[in-house]
Amino acid sequence: MSDLDARARELLASARVAHLATADQYSRPHVVPIVFAIQGDVLYFPLDRKPKREDDWHMLRRVRNIETNGRVSIVIDHYEEDWAKLAWVLLEGVATILETDAERDAAANALAQKYPQYQGGALDGRPVVRVVIERAVTWRAGQEAEP
Amino acid sequence: MSDLDARARELLASARVAHLATADQYSRPHVVPIVFAIQGDVLYFPLDRKPKREDDWHMLRRVRNIETNGRVSIVIDHYEEDWAKLAWVLLEGVATILETDAERDAAANALAQKYPQYQGGALDGRPVVRVVIERAVTWRAGQEAEP
Repeated sequence: MSDLDARARELLASARVAHLATADQYSRPHVVPIVFAIQGDVLYFPLDRKPKREDDWHMLRRVRNIETNGRVSIVIDHYEEDWAKLAWVLLEGVATILETDAERDAAANALAQKYPQYQGGALDGRPVVRVVIERAVTWRAGQEAEP
Repeated sequence: MSDLDARARELLASARVAHLATADQYSRPHVVPIVFAIQGDVLYFPLDRKPKREDDWHMLRRVRNIETNGRVSIVIDHYEEDWAKLAWVLLEGVATILETDAERDAAANALAQKYPQYQGGALDGRPVVRVVIERAVTWRAGQEAEP
């Protein structure tokens, strides 16, 4: 993250939604939109469901992917019809599900600070996923090499 | 795709950007924003680079993932601060890179129809990726089971 320039940092700071890719042990990818908070080289995103709800296979798929294969890829991008202004930042790292600990609580607070929708305890009892970012790559329109 | 309801179809028809997840043979996921055109059960997206540019490893990563593992996952979503209006459609399928054939040309035309940015031959000589959609799942806020 320390290599990112000011414009990439501004995109990370202003974006409200990101997209998370996971993959299972058979290399089947999965992608969903997420809300997120970044603190240093760690990104947190919530799981909007209580843990261990075995009846919810679809939800478990994302969780299962992370449990069996912590590698994730997250993109935060800006789209507009003036394609000269397209930009994105790709973050790659390893995800761990935090169910109950002080780090989870601090991350839930950071998420509720960023997203008023979570205020009033909406994240109480919900796991938060920690992603330790190992690689950050930025691209913007006009840049020669698109990552 | 035939199970999608009217609101999901409207989201697919109106969205300007989607997010593509691929994975390599080691189950490492990768995600990028894409522009796209859908025709029936097939989604097309362009590769904005000439084929076989061996000097561009980052670009090749996405292409390599598809060449070694055609399974892709694509999400088309709507974000706004009123989370009661969140919605997304997840498309899963198998991708093939089309370099030069009538299907590529028709897809490039469909992309240029949807995106005026491509008019004037910007896609000439560029590969287009065909994704045969095998599964489409829709989610919207308030729906009990999030896929």
